[in-house]
Amino acid sequence: MDYSKLNGLIPAVIQDAATSEVLMVGFMNDSALAETRRTGFATFFSRSRNTRWMKGETSGNKLEVVEILVDCDDDTVLLKVKRLGNGNVCHTGERSCFFRTLAGTETESPR
Amino acid sequence: MDYSKLNGLIPAVIQDAATSEVLMVGFMNDSALAETRRTGFATFFSRSRNTRWMKGETSGNKLEVVEILVDCDDDTVLLKVKRLGNGNVCHTGERSCFFRTLAGTETESPR
Repeated sequence: MDYSKLNGLIPAVIQDAATSEVLMVGFMNDSALAETRRTGFATFFSRSRNTRWMKGETSGNKLEVVEILVDCDDDTVLLKVKRLGNGNVCHTGERSCFFRTLAGTETESPR
Repeated sequence: MDYSKLNGLIPAVIQDAATSEVLMVGFMNDSALAETRRTGFATFFSRSRNTRWMKGETSGNKLEVVEILVDCDDDTVLLKVKRLGNGNVCHTGERSCFFRTLAGTETESPR
């Protein structure tokens, strides 16, 4: 992986393996990706807390890795996951972090 | 949107609105997002070329915006798009930039 473009980090897109819903985007450093692979649970690097953290380690809402894909230039990963615990990925209690539309962009899929 | 965490940029996840396939991840600055909304076609900021570019402007493989979602902390967007042109999003000629697995991670979805 190429960690040079974002000072040691790469974006990690989390997608529900069953529904294909995009659940969240986090960042990983080399250590977080290694821990993700070692444990089988999505582990990120928190930019605000400057530390590695396993998603759901305290809440139980872990993300079990089904498959990891890499993009064409090796600077982004896509994790297909199974949602554990209550299945809510966002800290707000929503299933996905992407629960809002950008105002004025709804052209075909109003909700 | 909060552009402060990545020096003026936010990740933009591109998802096929019809199939839910994640096609690529790019970056946008304020200007690229504004241009995306103004034109209705995904427009990014190239970190390597330090310039704004509309995806497919020369190839014709534009990404027509169907919907833009924002994540819970306003630092990432998810664009649901319709693929135009020949429908190949990756510069390698693949439909998606995520056409490879990270070796050793295929637990349930071999391909």
